[in-house]
Formats: sequence, C-alpha cells, structure tokens
Amino acid sequence: MAPAKKGILERLDAGEVVIGDGGFVFALEKRGYVKAGPWTPEATVEHPEAVRQLHREFLRSGSNVMQTFTFYASDDKLENRGSKLSFTGAQINEAACDLAREVANEGDALVAGGVCQTPSYLSCKSEAEVKAILNKQLDVFVKKDVDFLIAEYFEHVEEAVWAVEVLKETGKPVAACLCIGPDGDMHGVSPGECAVRLVKAGAQIVGINCHFDPMTCVKAVKMMKEGVEKAGLKAHYMVQPLAFHTPDCTCQGFIDLPEFPFGLEPRILSRWDMHAYAREAYNTGIRFIGGCCGFEPYHIRAIAEELAPERGFLPEASEKHGNWGAGLEMHTKPWVRARARRDYWENLKPASGRPLCPSMSSPDAWGVTKGHSDLIQQTEATSKDQLKQLFDRSKSQ
Amino acid sequence: MAPAKKGILERLDAGEVVIGDGGFVFALEKRGYVKAGPWTPEATVEHPEAVRQLHREFLRSGSNVMQTFTFYASDDKLENRGSKLSFTGAQINEAACDLAREVANEGDALVAGGVCQTPSYLSCKSEAEVKAILNKQLDVFVKKDVDFLIAEYFEHVEEAVWAVEVLKETGKPVAACLCIGPDGDMHGVSPGECAVRLVKAGAQIVGINCHFDPMTCVKAVKMMKEGVEKAGLKAHYMVQPLAFHTPDCTCQGFIDLPEFPFGLEPRILSRWDMHAYAREAYNTGIRFIGGCCGFEPYHIRAIAEELAPERGFLPEASEKHGNWGAGLEMHTKPWVRARARRDYWENLKPASGRPLCPSMSSPDAWGVTKGHSDLIQQTEATSKDQLKQLFDRSKSQ
Amino acid sequence: MAPAKKGILERLDAGEVVIGDGGFVFALEKRGYVKAGPWTPEATVEHPEAVRQLHREFLRSGSNVMQTFTFYASDDKLENRGSKLSFTGAQINEAACDLAREVANEGDALVAGGVCQTPSYLSCKSEAEVKAILNKQLDVFVKKDVDFLIAEYFEHVEEAVWAVEVLKETGKPVAACLCIGPDGDMHGVSPGECAVRLVKAGAQIVGINCHFDPMTCVKAVKMMKEGVEKAGLKAHYMVQPLAFHTPDCTCQGFIDLPEFPFGLEPRILSRWDMHAYAREAYNTGIRFIGGCCGFEPYHIRAIAEELAPERGFLPEASEKHGNWGAGLEMHTKPWVRARARRDYWENLKPASGRPLCPSMSSPDAWGVTKGHSDLIQQTEATSKDQLKQLFDRSKSQ
Amino acid sequence: MAPAKKGILERLDAGEVVIGDGGFVFALEKRGYVKAGPWTPEATVEHPEAVRQLHREFLRSGSNVMQTFTFYASDDKLENRGSKLSFTGAQINEAACDLAREVANEGDALVAGGVCQTPSYLSCKSEAEVKAILNKQLDVFVKKDVDFLIAEYFEHVEEAVWAVEVLKETGKPVAACLCIGPDGDMHGVSPGECAVRLVKAGAQIVGINCHFDPMTCVKAVKMMKEGVEKAGLKAHYMVQPLAFHTPDCTCQGFIDLPEFPFGLEPRILSRWDMHAYAREAYNTGIRFIGGCCGFEPYHIRAIAEELAPERGFLPEASEKHGNWGAGLEMHTKPWVRARARRDYWENLKPASGRPLCPSMSSPDAWGVTKGHSDLIQQTEATSKDQLKQLFDRSKSQ
Repeated sequence: MAPAKKGILERLDAGEVVIGDGGFVFALEKRGYVKAGPWTPEATVEHPEAVRQLHREFLRSGSNVMQTFTFYASDDKLENRGSKLSFTGAQINEAACDLAREVANEGDALVAGGVCQTPSYLSCKSEAEVKAILNKQLDVFVKKDVDFLIAEYFEHVEEAVWAVEVLKETGKPVAACLCIGPDGDMHGVSPGECAVRLVKAGAQIVGINCHFDPMTCVKAVKMMKEGVEKAGLKAHYMVQPLAFHTPDCTCQGFIDLPEFPFGLEPRILSRWDMHAYAREAYNTGIRFIGGCCGFEPYHIRAIAEELAPERGFLPEASEKHGNWGAGLEMHTKPWVRARARRDYWENLKPASGRPLCPSMSSPDAWGVTKGHSDLIQQTEATSKDQLKQLFDRSKSQ
Repeated sequence: MAPAKKGILERLDAGEVVIGDGGFVFALEKRGYVKAGPWTPEATVEHPEAVRQLHREFLRSGSNVMQTFTFYASDDKLENRGSKLSFTGAQINEAACDLAREVANEGDALVAGGVCQTPSYLSCKSEAEVKAILNKQLDVFVKKDVDFLIAEYFEHVEEAVWAVEVLKETGKPVAACLCIGPDGDMHGVSPGECAVRLVKAGAQIVGINCHFDPMTCVKAVKMMKEGVEKAGLKAHYMVQPLAFHTPDCTCQGFIDLPEFPFGLEPRILSRWDMHAYAREAYNTGIRFIGGCCGFEPYHIRAIAEELAPERGFLPEASEKHGNWGAGLEMHTKPWVRARARRDYWENLKPASGRPLCPSMSSPDAWGVTKGHSDLIQQTEATSKDQLKQLFDRSKSQ
Repeated sequence: MAPAKKGILERLDAGEVVIGDGGFVFALEKRGYVKAGPWTPEATVEHPEAVRQLHREFLRSGSNVMQTFTFYASDDKLENRGSKLSFTGAQINEAACDLAREVANEGDALVAGGVCQTPSYLSCKSEAEVKAILNKQLDVFVKKDVDFLIAEYFEHVEEAVWAVEVLKETGKPVAACLCIGPDGDMHGVSPGECAVRLVKAGAQIVGINCHFDPMTCVKAVKMMKEGVEKAGLKAHYMVQPLAFHTPDCTCQGFIDLPEFPFGLEPRILSRWDMHAYAREAYNTGIRFIGGCCGFEPYHIRAIAEELAPERGFLPEASEKHGNWGAGLEMHTKPWVRARARRDYWENLKPASGRPLCPSMSSPDAWGVTKGHSDLIQQTEATSKDQLKQLFDRSKSQ
Repeated sequence: MAPAKKGILERLDAGEVVIGDGGFVFALEKRGYVKAGPWTPEATVEHPEAVRQLHREFLRSGSNVMQTFTFYASDDKLENRGSKLSFTGAQINEAACDLAREVANEGDALVAGGVCQTPSYLSCKSEAEVKAILNKQLDVFVKKDVDFLIAEYFEHVEEAVWAVEVLKETGKPVAACLCIGPDGDMHGVSPGECAVRLVKAGAQIVGINCHFDPMTCVKAVKMMKEGVEKAGLKAHYMVQPLAFHTPDCTCQGFIDLPEFPFGLEPRILSRWDMHAYAREAYNTGIRFIGGCCGFEPYHIRAIAEELAPERGFLPEASEKHGNWGAGLEMHTKPWVRARARRDYWENLKPASGRPLCPSMSSPDAWGVTKGHSDLIQQTEATSKDQLKQLFDRSKSQ
C-alpha cells in the first residue's frame, strides 16, 4: 500500500511548491466538449474520457492538484443554461470527483473540490439562498471525500466570504480566490482588504484566479499578502492566472476585452512567459502556483521546469521537452538548431503576424455589477429583442 | 453490418467536401507527448490513449480522414533522433495504423497512411536509398490495409515524385502535398510545374501542406491547379495549411521565422480566420480541406461549420458551439451577449496584448537546401562546438 | 497708433483662451538650425530669418504668445556646449527678444521671456549661484521689456521655486512650468504639492510643459489645479506638452525613451490628436494652451480650430485648411473626397507602416537625478573613455 | 564674377551625386501656406518669404536642385481649385522661378522648372489640349531661363511622354518621373517599358517620384534601368520618394491609404531610414537622389551625410548635426549620451506609442483611373449630394 499523500497544508507549511492545473473550460472548449457562453461542465458525464485525458496531461506536466471540473456546476447556473441538460447537478459533480480522483491516484496529486460565484448572487438573492446553492455542491465533495476545497472566481468578496463560511463547515482545508486585479473587487474593495476578510472567514489559502494575466495577478496577490501581514494575520498564497496577455484590461478583466472569448489567440502566453511568471510568483512568496483559462499542459510544464531547481525534480512530461529549447539541437535545419539556447527564447519579442491588428484594445466597460438590473440572470435564452437592444447599446459605446 | 464507406476518390469524384484533420505533432507537443526538435511519433506506442483522444477530437469536429500519426516515422529519421528509442519504426507505424483505424470506425472517416520527406534525401542519398526507406513504412500501411496514402511535407518536388512512384505500387489512391508556397520548391520549381510532375507520377490528389498560413497555401494550390489544367491534365486538390499567420515568410515558410517553434502563439489563427480560409479554399475548387501544425479540433470544426451549407450537416462537436458566437447569448454579462453575432466576429481585429512586440518578423534565410553540406543529417546530437558555430553564425546574420 | 494689447493676466482673468506656440528647439533642429545634444539657441544670432519665420508661422496659426527662443541660453549651459560659440549669452538672448517682439507686433501676441533649468542646479551648485545664472538672462528681458516671464522645463520644483523668486523681482507676471507627469518631480514631490509651492513663491500661472504627451500633461495639470484649490489658493493654469505619444514613459518622460531624440517620428501626433487635446485641456479648466517639442505650426492651428467656437474666430492659417478635412472636397480622386468628414478622421486609427516595430518601448530608467554624480555637468565634451563606459552600462541594462 | 555652374547633365555625366530637394506641398501645408485638397502653389505670390525660407533650408541641407514650386500650377488645375484665386497661373509660375533662382544663387544649386500631370488628361482631353496646357507653364520657364526641366508626378506614361515631347522643344535638359511603383503605371505598363518610352521621347533622366516609400521607389527605378539597358538605350536615373513608410500600398500608392493625407504622421521616416535609402539608391546606380512629400530639410541632410564619403563634403546644415548621433555626446543625461553611436540608431526599431493602432492598413482600391467617369475633373467644389454618394460608397467598400 502506498504511503498516504501529504495534505495541501502540510505541503505549504513545509514550504513546498504546489503546482496547480490549468483551466478546463477553455481547454475543453477548444477540444469540442464545452460550450462557450454557458461554460458548464456536463462533459464529466457526457465525455469522461476527454476530461480524464486533460487531467492526465496536467498531472504529467507537473500538477499536484486535480481540481474537480465543477466550474459553474451549481444548480442555479445549470438551470440558467438556456437549454435543457439530461443530467442533474449532482451527477455532474459526482462524475467530476471520480475523474479527478482516478487521475490523482496515478501520481502525487491531491483532489480539490471547486465552487465558484453563483448567478443567485448576481441576481441579488439572499445570503441564505446563495449558501444553500453552494451547499448542494459541497454535499457531493464531502461524500466523495475530496482532499481540500477551493472557492474561486468570485468578483465580489462578499460572496466569497459566504462561500468560505460554507466550505469551512466541512472541516477540510479551504482556499479562496477572487478573480480581481490590483484595483480590487467589483464593489471597490482593495485586494489587501479582500484577503483580510477571507482569512478572517477561515480560508487558509488566499489568492487570485482568472481574469488577468500572470504578472497582474501576481501583483494583486502581493497586495493581498501585504494586507494580511499588515493586519497581523497569516495565510498561504495561491495564484492561477489567465494564459493571455491583458495589459489593457480594467477592473473586470478579460471579459471586457473585445476579443473575449473567441479572438484571444494573439494574446496566448508562450512557455517562456510562463517561466517568467513562475519565477515572479515564487519570488513574491506564493507557493501554490497554477493556471486558469488559456493554460494548456505545456504551460504548466513550463512552471514545473522553471521551479525544478527549487523542487529538485522535473515533471514526467519533460521527457518530451528540452530545457530552454534544447530539443532543437536535434532539428533538421542548422538555423533552427541555433535557437537551442536560453538567451534566444528569453529575449525574443514574438510577432503576431497580424499587421492589420493593434497591440492593445479598448475594453468594454459598461460598469455594471451585482445590484444592477442588467445583471439579473434569467433561465431562458436571451430573446431576439433583448439581443437587439444589446447590439445597439454596444455600438453606441 | 455497416455499409462500406465511400473511398476518397469516390467522394472527390462526386464533388463532396472531404475535411482533413489537424497536425498531430504540434498538438501533442503542447499536450506533452511529442518532443520539439526530433518531432518523432513514438507516442503511438508510449501513450496510445493521448493519440487516440486527439483522433477522436478531430473526428468529432468533422474530419473525414484519420491520418496515421507516422510523421517522421521513417527509420532513418528515428535513428537521427539523437537519443535511443525503445521501439522499432515498424512498431510505431503499426500502432499508428491501429489507432487511426479504431477511431475511423467510430464515424464516417477513412484512414490515410502518411509518409514525408526523409533525412536521406537531404543528405544526398540516392533515389534507390530514399525509395527503400519509404518502402519500409509502406509495408506497414499495406499490411494494415489503410484506405489511401498521403505523401506530404516535401520541400523538393524531386523527392515527392519518388515518393509517389513508390506509393503507386500499392495500388491505393495517392495524394501528394508539398510544403511550399507560391515561390515554389526549394530548387525553384514553380507550384504549377510541381503539380504537373506529381500528377504525371501518378498522384490523383495534389496540394500543399504545412509551412504557410491558409490563404498563402490556397494561393499556391490555385497555382498548382492552373498548372495542371494548362497541361491538359486532371487531378483533385487538397490543402492542409498551418494555423499560424505567416505574412512575413519567404520560401522556406515558418521554419525560418524567429518564433519557430516555441514563440508562435501570437500567430495562432482564430476560428473566424478558419471560416474565411474554408470559404476561400472551397471557392478555389479545393475539396480536400484540412489542417497541419497549429490546428486544434476547434479549427477543424470551424471549417466544417463554414461548409455546413454545402455539406448539409454540422459536425458532432457543434453541439458545443453556437454558430458565429451564438452561444454567447447565454453569457452572464450583457455586453458579452452583445457579441453574439456574425458581423462582430467577422470584423474584429484582435489585439495581441503585446505592445513591446512587432507585428511581423524578418525571417532567417540562410538559403541552404538539399545539396548544401549544412543539411547533411547526422545521427548523434549536435555537439557543443557545432552549436557554438551555429550561434555565432546566427548572430552575425 | 494701435491700442495697447491686453496683458497675459488680463486675458486669463477675463476667461479668454490664450494659445501658446510650439517648441523651437525640435522644429529648428529639423530645419537645420539647432544641434541636438547641446540644444542651444544661437540661431537667433546666426540665422535670424529662420527663427523669425518660425515665429511667424506660429503667429499665423493662432499663437498669442511669442516665447523668446532662449531655451538653454543661460551662460552655464552655453559653456557646457562642448564647442566654442562666437556669441555671448547676452547677444543670443537680446536677439531672441528682438525677433519675438518684431513678430508679436504683426498680430495679437505677447512676448514672453523664458528661462529653464540650469546645469548649475544639476551639478549641485548653491541657490545663490543658480539664481545668479538666472539673473543674467533676466537682465536682458527687463532691458527688452518683455510682456511677461515663463520659467519652464524644470524637473525639480526646488529649482523652479528659486526661478520664480528671481523672476518675481522684475514685477512682471510670472508663469512657471515643470516638465513632470502625474508621478511628480524628480525628488518625488506630487504635482499638487509642486503647484502649491510655485503659487506660494509668487507664480500667477502654473502648469506643465514638455516630457509627456498632451493627455498625460493635462492630467498632471489637473492634479496641480486640485492641489492649489485644496490649499485654498488661486492660480491660472497652462499646459505645453510634447507632440509625441508617450504612453510608455515613466517619471522622466520622453528623455528615457529609446527613440529620443532621433527616432520619435512614429510617435508624432496628428492634427486630430490635437483637437482632442485642446478640448480636454479646455474642459479641465486650463486656459493657456500651447505646445512644446514636436509641435509644428499645423498642430497649433488645430488647437485654434478646435477652440474657435469658444474664441469666436479662426486663425489666419485656416485660410489654408478646411475644417475637419473639408479641403479634401477638392481632391482629384473621389475616394479621397470621401474622407472630407469629421467622423472619418476622428475614428481613424493610423497605421505606422512599420510592421517590424513595436507599439511601445521599455524606457531607460537609470533613476539618477540631481544629487547623483552621474549628473554633474562638465564643460568639455564627453571623452571616448566616458562614452565607452556609458555604452557598456547601457547594454547591461 | 562666379564661375558658371556645371549643368545637370555635366554633373551626371561626370558621375557626380546630385541631391534633390523635398516636397514643398506637404512641408508648406504643415507650415500653414498650402491647402490640402487643391494642393496649389499660390503661396509663391502670397507668402514668398515662407517659400524662400524652405528653399534655403533645403539648400543648406545639401540640395543641388531648387525645383520651382509650380506643382499643380497649370491653368486647368488652378481653375479646378473650387475657390477663386486672385492670381493668374503665369504670376504664380513666375514668382516660383524668381524664388528658386534667388536661393539657387546663394549656393551650388540649379533651378529646375517642374510640370506635372493635368486634370485635362484625367478628364480625357485630347493630346493637343493637354500639350497646350503644359506649354503655358513652359513659356514662363523659358522666359525665366531655368537650368533644366522636370516632368514629374505622372500616373500614366502616355501623358508623361506627351509632357517630355513638349519640354524637349525648349532645348533644355529634360528629366521625367512617374509616380508609380513596381506594378507599373495606372494602365498596367511596367516600369521598364515606361522608362523606355520616356527615353525614346527624349528624356535624358528618368525615374520615380512620390506615391511610395524610398525602398519601393528605388526598386521601381531599378526596373526602369533594367528596361532601358535591355533596350540598348542610355539614361541617367533619379528618385524622389515619399518620406512615409508604405509597405501596404497597392498600385496607386499612398493616395489609397486611409491615412492620406491627414494621418500619415506614424509613417514618417527617420533620418536613419534616409541613410539606408541614400545608400540603396546609390548602390542601384541612381545619381539624382532627392525627396518628395514628407521630406523635411533634415531628411535631405541625412542623404547628404550618408553620401559625404562619395561626395567629399558635408552640407552646411551639418554644422548643426553630429554624424550618427554624435551631438548627443553633449547631452545633459548620461543615458542619452550612451546613444551617441551608429549601431544604436541603425538597429533601433522605433515604437509608435500608439498601441490601439495597427502597423499596416488596407488601402482603398477603387480601381478607377483615366478613362473612368469618376475621374472627370470639375471646376466647382464637390456638392453635398456628390459627397454623400462618396461617403456611402466608401462605407460599403
């Protein structure tokens, strides 16, 4: 029998680097298993082999955490999908747990059950209602005995605190991530203050996921860390950013970019961008380092390769990757072999091949958030009339 | 028992659109199963589940051809890999055939056995030696009874003609693709003349794959078609381009770009670029339309969606994709719902988020090709001294 | 006899818009009369016709202020020039006054005597020494009876305050401009605090000139205005920014850009950028609106055209300019005539025609300022050894 | 008495480099003396001091040719101006000759009388009518005894040949320039064939001016030279390109760019671009090297500085310019002094400071030229109705 794995807090307390995985929603959308718009994870039931394969790729690339593919798998969100699903929320969540556990068992990874912001909150439902929704997912996580919990992708710290309060009741370690940048949450609460509230609510790990590029997220986590330390509190820190460059984003992140979600390709980070990110996150004192939307397995591998000196080992997938381009030593063409060196890739400013495109965009910034009637969620699909109003409004901005 | 599938020539003769798959080498490199540099396909034996999954994703996205993952699987290339493999070329090729067949059987797809240019040719070996190498792969394809054969990724029409001559002996339909652009092959033979030679050698389908972006490849195939027609010959046409924008490439294509192969992210085509490509290819009279390096399943799906009116059906994976962004009608944010329309995505000029990067690069252009001593391939890895010479030469360009 | 002109304070007190001129140093460098590096104004003596012509072009374009071309005409700077001049500082300053007065008399313009930061201050000379240097220029301005005085292009508010103190002794109206952005002066004093100190020292007009693009300068003047109002003080405001886009600048402005001073062309503002600037400055409550380095006469004309509704008249040079492109109605080609409309030019995103260039740069940021030995000025030209040290240091940044 | 100057053909026959001047229309538009749209040169009468000053700046920068500012000064064009002028064509042309001669006498420069394409030709008038129009300008040039003649800015070689035939009758040396690129004239005649026709018509010097950037123009002149040599003829060659980067232009050049004429700033060439241009032109065998629209005096100076080794001297204006940035050795800031070297400026890729703008544009390409009704010129200004039609048509492109 294998020795029991070290838990998430044991690892972080020991100063180990814990590598997260990448975002399933975007990766599986490109593979044909998730629908952009609703973004719901019914693939866990419909196409388990595709979900399992992606877990395996992340594990092989160095991930220590198999996050259950339960994003937007709350019942209120599944209902808001606009088209009927043949599966209950519980079925989807259970299948996600089984897949994560199956692959986690193949290596040194833990299973994290994940919850995220709810349509109920955006629609101004009460604290009790929101907590009830979250509890339904949690029942599955407890039943399936995940190793720890992650509350992530919250735009409002108020809802994230509610989530932490619910998750804490399980007795499992709790990590909490907001999807905010240095400007703070959608109600204007600063990252430092957000972190303090999450820690006070009981989260042992706090950080940022999604919505901004790696360096921006690291900067925001740094502000969280400073806030927590200034308040005399203690916490571990995590970061799971986008794999897209977002220098032009304002407070709501990449959602506001005109390229979201079907024109983000030119913004995708290279593996070398990931080296720089991993180093910066490490130097900032963050030890739980992973990814979100846009991350492919090779991005996670780049994190693991950058931090191999600290960790003492390379991930399995590095058998198929020469350090800093060394594999090119075996390329057919001599001028490509000449690129088999670190300084080449570190200094490269990659061209877009798109001379008719700009390098930055003006984000949409409608400035509406929870409490605004535009954000009340509805079960039925947007009607033609509603869409026309949106188009017209969009053009006049 | 299922009715026998229509063969490749039957389909093309009937004017049907045949959708190809995407490039396995790049897709599996990102997933951690192929090493950039050698680019060899031993994953068919080492990690069959990963190869099978990718086949399935392409099938689901609309591909009618499962190309065996046998790129660079000739014995001379496998030996040039610079590190010992535990598998014989025959083992790798056989496993590739089995995987392709298994998935092809799950849908309306044919199996195509693929061969490509050999290190032997670049190293100036004789016609007999090159043909002997190709014959070894062919033995497997015959044994496994693939549906047709593709000779692809040839930079020199001379070698491609040799390949067609070898493949023809099997009696199976033969497609032949060069990896050239409008400027012609590495010895300066024009696309039109190349096509004529390939057709005269016996290829029933001729075209272009890899090395250039879709519009450039379509342009080159158009030149092939004009050459063939002018010569009073007949053929079918195919195109399987890169999913990278390459407006700045010279004759050797993306290999010469400073971003090759680890900094190409900003050049990745969007699904909307693929719509435009599929339409242009169709209008040019090309009926076998697929992809090569950089293509992910959603790129193939975009081809299938663009040509759905002509074909009369959508691919399976479109259950997870609203036409022209329609899925966004169910997005949480109203300003994202406003993007659920064709004219929005068709007119978008996506930003790179990289203000410090240019939009085009100056390609390396060492101007060496078959016959030049720099291109003689060696079995051992490049030595430190050899690398240093390459670096110095590279800097002085 | 013509009626006496209204003074600068009379105009501003009456709420009139006063339009400044553009920077002579850059404009005359392009015309061949000023040397980049030393940037000294001996052209007033050597080539008075060239200086006079530029004054006339600005007058004709709408300028109400003819600023004497006395930038860097302090004796300590002229000595630091590294090559002997045949003229004394007094000669250069006197000629400048005569030229400005001659052209001012041709229209509705005032003469402003200008002083700027001194090498003595950067070299850590005493307050008495710096004031003595400034007094020498002032003697000329008093003798030539200029209409008012401008202390401009100060990086440190400390030296600017000294300058204001000296200028105030003449009894003439005093304007004071720092060349700083929203981050404040080189010692970290905020724009608001800088403005308060200048007003307390006696400046009736305060603002920003040079170093940053128009919108950034307006933003910094806004911060000055808020600082002054919060302190319960009163002042008039002016802004004379660069005609270069500088979104990538840090605290020391365009000096730090790799393009400074010989590669700034792609950053030059269009006339339409100037319309937006003039409107923003006006809306911010700034009434003395002009330009600095990079401004050509047509840029000043654009300010005058944008504010024509407020001022009630167009500048003389508008006889050669159709409003918002209206002159194109007479173009030979019909598709150019189709551009004769405001919305066309207002929405145009002009391309650089430079696909190999980025859109932003990483500024040099050596972080040295007054007090640092690197900034001690020397009379002799930089030696080869000194230059080599600088090159090496530059490469390692 | 000064020795008689060498004529243009003497100089070119002797292999000397002859440096042209820059375009007056654009330079004086920025200074407020020419109206964009009609582009006519009445400033020679209205504001002779401004025209004289620009001549002087070019002379001082190294120009050996003072081209009379008579662009579009044919009577048919002046009538088409859409607003009455108080001057006759003869007055404007005579004043232009006097100004050019006055400044030419101040240095080693010749006076060239210039004619260009006529509205009459575009409006399909007969050869006799077009020649009559050109003869009226020519009468002035003969009366004022200019040193040689330049027929320039012709889009159709047919009209240029007519012009050469008319000019030849004066007995003065004749230069002829088309404003075309490598794709040939508006009727599709190749540069080589165009050159042959011009030489056969009697032009001793042939070349290209305007419409394209320097490298493109040099390429087209090279094609002209090859055509002339292949035909067994002899000629001298000249080039006077734009000072704007135009990599995205099609056959009609920068007129078709969306930025023409009021948004071209980001495309302006730097002095270093001019060094490269001058060298390339020289190496191509062109000896009459100048500029057109966009050239400022410092651009001409850069040509003269690049070719100083061949010519043996620097222009007068180089007293105010250190070679390859050497003047920066005297800059205040040490990091700017570090830029005082050739390799710095030669390798700089200057940023645009415009992250929201693309690097290239899609040119308008209405594809209409002489013979198309859209190009019939009219005397009155475009009517509102006509403009509306143009706008609508423009939007639908």
